[in-house]
Amino acid sequence: MNVGFIGLGLMGRPMALNLMRAGHSLRVWARRAESMQPLLDAGALACSSAADVARGADVVITIVGDAPDVERVALGPEGIADGAREGLIHIDMSTISPEVTEGIAARLRERGVTMLDAPVSGGEPGAINATLTIMVGGDASAFECAKPLFEAMGKAISHIGGNGAGQVAKACNQIVTGVGVASVAEALNFARASGVDAGAVREVLMGGFAASRILDAHGGRMVKREFRPGFKSWMHQKDMRIVLDEAHRMGLQLPTAAAAAQLFNAMVGSGLGEEDSVAMLKLFERMSGGEG
Amino acid sequence: MNVGFIGLGLMGRPMALNLMRAGHSLRVWARRAESMQPLLDAGALACSSAADVARGADVVITIVGDAPDVERVALGPEGIADGAREGLIHIDMSTISPEVTEGIAARLRERGVTMLDAPVSGGEPGAINATLTIMVGGDASAFECAKPLFEAMGKAISHIGGNGAGQVAKACNQIVTGVGVASVAEALNFARASGVDAGAVREVLMGGFAASRILDAHGGRMVKREFRPGFKSWMHQKDMRIVLDEAHRMGLQLPTAAAAAQLFNAMVGSGLGEEDSVAMLKLFERMSGGEG
Repeated sequence: MNVGFIGLGLMGRPMALNLMRAGHSLRVWARRAESMQPLLDAGALACSSAADVARGADVVITIVGDAPDVERVALGPEGIADGAREGLIHIDMSTISPEVTEGIAARLRERGVTMLDAPVSGGEPGAINATLTIMVGGDASAFECAKPLFEAMGKAISHIGGNGAGQVAKACNQIVTGVGVASVAEALNFARASGVDAGAVREVLMGGFAASRILDAHGGRMVKREFRPGFKSWMHQKDMRIVLDEAHRMGLQLPTAAAAAQLFNAMVGSGLGEEDSVAMLKLFERMSGGEG
Repeated sequence: MNVGFIGLGLMGRPMALNLMRAGHSLRVWARRAESMQPLLDAGALACSSAADVARGADVVITIVGDAPDVERVALGPEGIADGAREGLIHIDMSTISPEVTEGIAARLRERGVTMLDAPVSGGEPGAINATLTIMVGGDASAFECAKPLFEAMGKAISHIGGNGAGQVAKACNQIVTGVGVASVAEALNFARASGVDAGAVREVLMGGFAASRILDAHGGRMVKREFRPGFKSWMHQKDMRIVLDEAHRMGLQLPTAAAAAQLFNAMVGSGLGEEDSVAMLKLFERMSGGEG
């Protein structure tokens, strides 16, 4: 397929490379030209704008920072809609709010572009190893059409529902993982403060109902004190803001998610924003006379 | 072994029966005589008090409600210490506070009794199928001596540390599982309120870092609306009180655990105390115009 790709960051670059490895030809554009280089080296075509990317593409994929970035690249001047042929599929793999996603999808529809929201989970390792979880919202036949692209980038791929449903699933994912990291940090710090070996506690808990990928992977890194990212805390902070904004809009109480969001705020405020979310353990240690 | 068993409730009865099946002879006592009947039918010996249970036993196991019950049965009039021969091992499998456990262990030591704390996780199904997780604190050689008994009742069996360490591990377990149930209920209610199929969200989340036994088992029961216990909410409420009392004593902040504890309070206060902890979903629905 002729695939446009915009957003060649930590996640986007390996995802785009995986698409090329699967035999797709790529058209790329980036505000900072040097971001394109690894893709050009692999044979991608450099474009001069998002509209230029769209001009020769069947599908354009974006994975950028936040809602205003998606809006600008899709609908702004020299954006995707400006260059799109009728029937182009725009797959946005950024994590943004379900509500904003629905709005962008509606405006793109008026201009002949079919939008899918397809946020991912699995972090940089998942992007590199093409093992991402991909949660897709939007038109079912566009999903079928784009499936080979998803399969080149991820492993667990699901069509959840209409426009925005992928973002809703991602929000649910960030609730469960964000709260999960917090609860594991609280528990392991509780063990340490009680004079009990946190590694032994993690191990016995893995044998019962407390078992989770977060306790296994993130808990394991807390015990070994490996705080390099992975998935940076300020990114999870951003995702929790999206979750709580949506909850505010809908009038939903999210008590444990709100507590976790406050902890991510405190991580960023205390200089842990660039470290992995597992560094939340340090936050608890600092508040309880531990190593920190 | 000659094993005494006190506390023939929902958990204790199947645990005691599994000990008999493994070939141990049991001495039992209960305040309500009818609680003993299933054990007597299986060949256990009825005793007239906790002291009487201890008199003929190498090991006495207790699994009762709360700290005052453990204290009474161990150290009260006609309690275990009154009937114990020198070197008796008392295994308390109740969930009580680590601090209280240490105190009881110290007083029993003065009277020649070695205490192990060995709280369990896995609920009634785990008790019936002998698949409990057993977290043990106390003397290492007493642990080795009691191991065949643990193996007749559970699967993941760990010696965590000195007296109270088993209770610390159990507290950590209740933090992670209690907060886990809350976060899954919040996420699945978020999906429903957004008009997205909660079952589809649970399924895609199981493919990524959100995967856990709680999302799988408890999340599955939320989707199918199976609220029968399992593990009653008022029991998890009690365990969260122990956790937060300990945190207060140590000066530890537990933000997500505290939020979860409030939710268990609200479950009990709104008539959901006898239902399984998965009925927390109903609480969120009632607060957001859902089915409830």
